[in-house]
Amino acid sequence: MARLAANGRSKSPGQTKERIIKVAAEMFARKGYHATGVEELSTEVGLGRGALYYHITSKEDLLHEILSRPAEEMSAAVLALQKLDLPSEAKLRQFAQTLMRGISDNRAEWTVFFREFHGLTDHRLRAILELRNSFELALLGIINQGITRGDFRNSDPELLVKGILGMFNYSYLWIRADGRCTPEEIADLFCDALLRGIRAN
Amino acid sequence: MARLAANGRSKSPGQTKERIIKVAAEMFARKGYHATGVEELSTEVGLGRGALYYHITSKEDLLHEILSRPAEEMSAAVLALQKLDLPSEAKLRQFAQTLMRGISDNRAEWTVFFREFHGLTDHRLRAILELRNSFELALLGIINQGITRGDFRNSDPELLVKGILGMFNYSYLWIRADGRCTPEEIADLFCDALLRGIRAN
Repeated sequence: MARLAANGRSKSPGQTKERIIKVAAEMFARKGYHATGVEELSTEVGLGRGALYYHITSKEDLLHEILSRPAEEMSAAVLALQKLDLPSEAKLRQFAQTLMRGISDNRAEWTVFFREFHGLTDHRLRAILELRNSFELALLGIINQGITRGDFRNSDPELLVKGILGMFNYSYLWIRADGRCTPEEIADLFCDALLRGIRAN
Repeated sequence: MARLAANGRSKSPGQTKERIIKVAAEMFARKGYHATGVEELSTEVGLGRGALYYHITSKEDLLHEILSRPAEEMSAAVLALQKLDLPSEAKLRQFAQTLMRGISDNRAEWTVFFREFHGLTDHRLRAILELRNSFELALLGIINQGITRGDFRNSDPELLVKGILGMFNYSYLWIRADGRCTPEEIADLFCDALLRGIRAN
């Protein structure tokens, strides 16, 4: 794993903080949040413990920053998509592509999101759970709109949405930026299976 | 959460160990493996720290016992299913039902399985990853058999299997033993979506 270059100190505080968040996300994803010590993290970043605490308030704060940024970006993208006037299937495909691209581009952060969110407490935990809920509601909106328009079968959309999200979200475990398919191609393959079924003919 | 009754000491060592594993699974699922201290666990079980260590070798050992038992049971069930001579769709449905029933009956253990497996080291980690891999291979076998028999479309089965597993496995996050559908009904609903697609007509 890369460390701060010897000239790390000449970087702006903003750049250093970005670097801390990136390295922490990778360590938390690999070893777990609780198993990663601040000492270890500061060594990996190439800063002393004191210098590290100049940039972060607490380890939980750092966890919150790792989780909230990609989740807020995803939430904004999904919200924008909801407002578009698109055919039902196109909307489902765009939703899937947005999710898979986001998870692939920030795989460490999403791994931490899915595995370590319970390391947050109080309002921070509530905020993350609300963000997670917003993806589910957005997808439910797309499916329900498809049912209303007569494009999708009406078959327990609330449960179906949980299955579809699992299909995409679980990819944090196996998706690779250098894999043989792009995230968009994988999203399309899964949407094909969902839309027309895997049954022959 | 229930504790050992006052007469806990009169129970057999086997029963006490079962109880320790159950309570630990619930605590690890709720708080995380690393965040749960042995002190706290012994209080929750209603045993002193010394008495607890009479039953377990180490915290990692306990984690391994929590994960390996339901995973080995599931692996055996899936292996038995593979050997049955059944139509492709029936086999897929049985696989799905086995997975959903297993996750629902041992939700705490599966939560720990999906979130905390990286708390294991060396041969224990390898054994768990091999078990996880065995579910994937079993499902791939079912899909490939369906393709060979002309029942399923041939469309990147390796990737498809990851999507289908996500659909089912992700249920550890939301499935409830007292939910409005049984695990088998949920498995069937997801299989319907996968087999015939969600598109109307």
